[in-house]
Parts: sequence; C-alpha cells; structure tokens
Amino acid sequence: MNKNISKSVIKRLPRYYRFLCELEEQGCDRVSSGKLSEIMRTTASQVRQDLNHFGGFGHQGYGYSVPRLKDEIINILGLNNTHDAVLIGAGHIGTGIAAHMKFENMGFRIAGIFDSNDKIIGDTINSIPISDIKTINDFTVGRDIKAAFLCIPKDAAPEVVKNLYNLGIRSFWNFTHYDIHADYPDAIVENVHLSDMLMTLCYSMNEQED
Amino acid sequence: MNKNISKSVIKRLPRYYRFLCELEEQGCDRVSSGKLSEIMRTTASQVRQDLNHFGGFGHQGYGYSVPRLKDEIINILGLNNTHDAVLIGAGHIGTGIAAHMKFENMGFRIAGIFDSNDKIIGDTINSIPISDIKTINDFTVGRDIKAAFLCIPKDAAPEVVKNLYNLGIRSFWNFTHYDIHADYPDAIVENVHLSDMLMTLCYSMNEQED
Repeated sequence: MNKNISKSVIKRLPRYYRFLCELEEQGCDRVSSGKLSEIMRTTASQVRQDLNHFGGFGHQGYGYSVPRLKDEIINILGLNNTHDAVLIGAGHIGTGIAAHMKFENMGFRIAGIFDSNDKIIGDTINSIPISDIKTINDFTVGRDIKAAFLCIPKDAAPEVVKNLYNLGIRSFWNFTHYDIHADYPDAIVENVHLSDMLMTLCYSMNEQED
Repeated sequence: MNKNISKSVIKRLPRYYRFLCELEEQGCDRVSSGKLSEIMRTTASQVRQDLNHFGGFGHQGYGYSVPRLKDEIINILGLNNTHDAVLIGAGHIGTGIAAHMKFENMGFRIAGIFDSNDKIIGDTINSIPISDIKTINDFTVGRDIKAAFLCIPKDAAPEVVKNLYNLGIRSFWNFTHYDIHADYPDAIVENVHLSDMLMTLCYSMNEQED
C-alpha cells in the first residue's frame, strides 16, 4: 500500500470510487479530468494532482481509464481485503444497513447479526440469522472477526463494546453516541453522528434565511 | 446570529452541544476547559479559543456554565427555530430515523411521512401516518415545509427531488447517493454517505495491519 498519500486525498477516494462505479455502470470506459472535477465539484487541476499520487494514468487528450482508476482506488483503500464483521442490533437502522448495503464492495462481510430482543432472534436478514447477543462469545471462537457495526442504543453500548474488545475486536462502525475512543484509545472507530449532520443542516438553513 | 464564527468552529458545535447535553443530564452545572477538551479530544486552549468566539463565559477557576454555553450554541445553530420537514421513504432507515431521533432538539419537526409502498401507507411512526407519496403536493399547500429527509433508493431520488423542488423545498437531508447539488446548485444539502464511511473504516484497518 502506498503510504505517501495524504489523509486529505484518502478522504476523497471513496467519493471518487463511487463516481467511477457509476461511470462504469453507464458503460463509460474513459473519463477526462474535466468531467471528474465536475462530478467531484473541484478543479481539474486538483483531480490531476489527486490521481497523480497513485500512478497517474491520465493521458493528454485521452483521459483516465475508468476500470484502471477504480482498481487502483480499490487497492489503496484495500477494499478487496475482506474483513469479517458482526452487526450488533437488528432494529430499524441495523436492519436497513444489513439489508441494503453492498458490504462485499466495501471490504466487509457480515459474519453474524446479534440482538437481545427475543421477538426477532431467529429471524433472518439477507439469509443471515439474527442470533442472541448472549451467544456471541461462542460465535467468535475460531472465527477471525475484525470489526463490529454498532446499531444499538447508547446506554447498551459500553457493556457491548467492552465484551467485543475482550473478544479481540478492535474496529467499530459506531452508530451510537458512545465515545469508544475515550475508553479504548487503540480502537479504530468510524462514528456516524446523524444528529450532528442534522444540526449542521439546521445551521445552514438559518444562515441562508438571515 | 453571529456571522463572524468560522466554519471550522461551527462544524465542532454539534459535538460540543451533544456533550453539554450529556453533562446536563448528569447534573453537571459547570465544566472546565480542561474537561471539555478531554471530551472533545482537543486542547484546553483550543476550547477556550472556540468558546471565546461566542461570548466567552469562562471564568478562571470557575469554568463554563453548562446551561449558558448550551443555550448559546442553540442560538448560534438556530436549533430553537423549528423547521417543518417531510420524510420521504419509510423503509428501515427512514423508520429508524423517524422513530428514534429527537428532531425537536435539532431544529426540525416531521410534518409528514411519505412512501409509495401500499403495504405501509396508513401505518404510523410515532403517531405520524405514512401517506401516499402521490398526495404530497396537496399536503404541502398552506404548509411551510422547508426541508425533506430522503430515505429512498437512489433511482427514485431524481424524480422525487424534482417534485419537492417545484413545491419550493430547498433543503435536503440526503441518505441517497443522488447528487442533488449537481442538478440544483441553490439547494442546501447535507449528504449521509454511509458507504464512504465504511470504506474509510476499511482503509484505517488495512493501514494498521500493514
């Protein structure tokens, strides 16, 4: 993996990747830096600079090869290196994620789904059964579970995370507001703070009204 | 509203706000810049600088008043200025949001929920009925609907947004990958790109493994 790519470029890669997938779906084999910059809402020079970081497949008058660029981003982000994950909490959000997201395209596989609600234990989401959270310790034995997706109420999070951490899980996609890093500084955490986004939207709307 | 607060400070305010709400719930009346910096994972000097932007309620040896600081952030973000919104798409994600988020604390009220699926039209979420998307034009007459929360498949988004835009709705909390800004440059959009976050998590995990 190329270690010399700056964080700011890395942050833009999922977005590039999404657009390249769309271009591919539309049957586009090549794309110009101008077109990419339009989609990315940045300048063509920024795009060229970004893409030069990892190979620079662009050719004057030809543009970039969509599949090559896509493959290169897959390599850099490591999306072809599939991590097994458990989904904790099969409420609305958890179910929505498990049912609709294409994890296999994003470096993950849901190995198991867990909940504490008797009413849904035994149900399946995309053929994956919902198991009793009490059985998770046994489940992880002999499996290489690397990550957990937390779709549970905040109050339940500290105990769940403590157990997962003790089971060796260090990476979390966290939909709760529990601050995992505060208790486990070595954890890798991607927080989804929906309320923060909503407040930002509120601010932007008020700002425009002024 | 204070227009002189930089965007980078504004971006941190929802986070401050969340922590202040928690402190208040715990019965905390005052907080030091040291404690706030710990929670915010920044320096005490950064916190003092941030909070000086809007009043500077801190006193040496006393700290900040939690309720005053919270009120000030509410004012800046305009969270007490409630905007009526419609939620489009009552699938798993839409239902999860409508059922669990405290919109009234974040400047919004869900005035109506709409879907195209006959099987769920007529159901309610938090006492709000799910209405047929075909009836949305009539619904908005005489109502001041400012925002739409889009929890629909990407393919359905362009037509839905076109209609909402024609109805005068300009602000969108967008869970789809449809690029609203590309078609409506004057729209206010807050995008929730869950897949981007997941890819970022994948990258961070691979980086640590290297």
